[in-house]
Amino acid sequence: MTVSAPASAVRTHTRPRLFTPGPVEIPIRILRAMSQVPPHHRTDVFRATYQAVTRDLAWLHETAGEVLMLAASGTGAMEACVVNLLAPGEKALTIVGGKFGERWANIGKAYGVPNEVVTVEWGRAVDPGEVEKRLAADPAITTVFATQSETSTGALHDVRALAQVTRGKGRRLVVDAITGVGVHPLPQDAWGVDVVVTGSQKGLMAPPGIATVSLAPWALDAIEGARLPRFYFDLRKARKSLPAGESAFTPAVSLIFAVQEALAMMKEEGLANVHQRHARLAAATRAGAQALGFTLFAKSPANSVTAIEPPAGVDASAVIKRLREVHGITVAGGQDHMKGKMLRIGHMGAYDLSDIYVLLGALEECVGACGRPASGATEAARRAWEAA
Amino acid sequence: MTVSAPASAVRTHTRPRLFTPGPVEIPIRILRAMSQVPPHHRTDVFRATYQAVTRDLAWLHETAGEVLMLAASGTGAMEACVVNLLAPGEKALTIVGGKFGERWANIGKAYGVPNEVVTVEWGRAVDPGEVEKRLAADPAITTVFATQSETSTGALHDVRALAQVTRGKGRRLVVDAITGVGVHPLPQDAWGVDVVVTGSQKGLMAPPGIATVSLAPWALDAIEGARLPRFYFDLRKARKSLPAGESAFTPAVSLIFAVQEALAMMKEEGLANVHQRHARLAAATRAGAQALGFTLFAKSPANSVTAIEPPAGVDASAVIKRLREVHGITVAGGQDHMKGKMLRIGHMGAYDLSDIYVLLGALEECVGACGRPASGATEAARRAWEAA
Repeated sequence: MTVSAPASAVRTHTRPRLFTPGPVEIPIRILRAMSQVPPHHRTDVFRATYQAVTRDLAWLHETAGEVLMLAASGTGAMEACVVNLLAPGEKALTIVGGKFGERWANIGKAYGVPNEVVTVEWGRAVDPGEVEKRLAADPAITTVFATQSETSTGALHDVRALAQVTRGKGRRLVVDAITGVGVHPLPQDAWGVDVVVTGSQKGLMAPPGIATVSLAPWALDAIEGARLPRFYFDLRKARKSLPAGESAFTPAVSLIFAVQEALAMMKEEGLANVHQRHARLAAATRAGAQALGFTLFAKSPANSVTAIEPPAGVDASAVIKRLREVHGITVAGGQDHMKGKMLRIGHMGAYDLSDIYVLLGALEECVGACGRPASGATEAARRAWEAA
Repeated sequence: MTVSAPASAVRTHTRPRLFTPGPVEIPIRILRAMSQVPPHHRTDVFRATYQAVTRDLAWLHETAGEVLMLAASGTGAMEACVVNLLAPGEKALTIVGGKFGERWANIGKAYGVPNEVVTVEWGRAVDPGEVEKRLAADPAITTVFATQSETSTGALHDVRALAQVTRGKGRRLVVDAITGVGVHPLPQDAWGVDVVVTGSQKGLMAPPGIATVSLAPWALDAIEGARLPRFYFDLRKARKSLPAGESAFTPAVSLIFAVQEALAMMKEEGLANVHQRHARLAAATRAGAQALGFTLFAKSPANSVTAIEPPAGVDASAVIKRLREVHGITVAGGQDHMKGKMLRIGHMGAYDLSDIYVLLGALEECVGACGRPASGATEAARRAWEAA
């Protein structure tokens, strides 16, 4: 007589699936683009590719300025902003409502930047009025460092309103939109955002390794002159080589092919449709998770990452572990004081409603296994998708 | 009646071929490794990969120390050395015999490092006795920045002799071995080299985008303490996260798979065999090119890049153009004052004697088309391969 395996041991998946705050699942088209034999980077054929990708990135940022690619992850591009925009002694204001706002402050600290901090409760968006007050009180502040989508909390900040404040006060606004670009609208020139940073592994659906700094047309000269020490991240070098279709240092050629294919996919879909789909993905995820008893952590939720706290009696870490072991699904947990208390679910890139069904089906199984059975998630998700 | 096309218009190749000083041709095994669906980087499966690659890199460097991977191109890792090793005001000695020696000096300049320069004629190796003299004369110098294989001239510097000098004088030696590692022996611990830098796109046969800093066991603490400003390239962060199989910032996951496959190929071949093959490739290239009337530029030639000047009456730029247009072969030209005067031929990675036949066959056609017919290159190459 054989003993049947416990239900939890039945393997229900044939492949792993990512619902992480990045890197995200890479579409097969992009993996294939990356596996092509690359030409040398100092050839006309690659120069044309480099320029085309640069143009498409400007399309993505809705800017008539210049988007500079760096072989680095997103933090490298953030550092590039700090060291290229600030002169020694120049004062900054940093909005800190999570780990990535904190990163701006930490980069400034490493370079000795005098820095004021606007502290925002985790999960909430900054009050632009507070920023305005701080800028009015301290005319020495030249630059505001902000985050569009705070990946550690799933909160969305109102970049448009922040830009109105900084423009009104004659200060510079630098936005970490690493999990914002390709997810939420951020029309750089129309909103008046001086500098925007993003990375290849979020809305751009490619592997990590390329980060970009987008300079608005009126901000192109902001990187000139005596600034903090810079060499690899010296954006003057990147700008200087761009007209020739070259990068200052050896570019990550294969990843540039990946980004090129991602941009082609986004152009096929249309930027407004990409943003709308992310709004639907986020709405569906939130509604489905709430139907299962989860609570939204962010008061002002972004469409990139949904941060949820489990119902009473259900341990967040146990759900994350079970998602991975039983369902082959990777999501992220909380960071710092939210460690072990939340799930962070990423839905940036080529995700669709079916992917959300996958996630919710697995989450439903997990809460049931944790003794809090619930149902109705897929229907709630479908309705939210349609209404969004 | 049809008019036959001129001989030069007959397309003789079906695919482009790279003989550049990097990025080099990527073997299909490596392209395939890179096109796999990557797991999330904060999962046990990727942590195990990260640690295995780190271990294999230590094998490659022949060190019991630690090799730290950065998502950057080689220059990023060079900058990491400068900012992590030097305290403000600390004095350096830089060996400059080409563009890449110059880069050490320029990075130092960007960070205000007091720097002495040992100028070496392009194509020659530095005299270790001169370095010894300079160190003896200036006890304030703490660190020597050197280049193993100077990619701009094809010259090899004697790292072993330099390490004897720096060890003898109690100074640190930091070596840019970007086109050295996987080509020439550089047993870090045995030779006593404190820090070695390399990149993914040279001897490692992978696309660009990963650069590494190898710290010898006795140099692990050299990055601690008050140093020049550093954040993205702060090696303390990289070291701290390494035991957990993680990187400080999002790693270039797909490129790490590429490097993993490259290291597997090198282990299969055996490190001594890899070095020996490169010695043969270089010997064959030199002999073949000389048979065609070219002159070696470097007095102390490296096995990574062969820099050659064309025979009188043959224009280097015309040969480079014809190699590309008629033969589909990309080589590099000279830089700075050698622009238009030389060819730089890379043969790092998975090249074999047949590849050198390809190159020499094409070069032979080029010199013939330029009115300086010559022959015997393949035989000269074969003999040199056998004798090396």
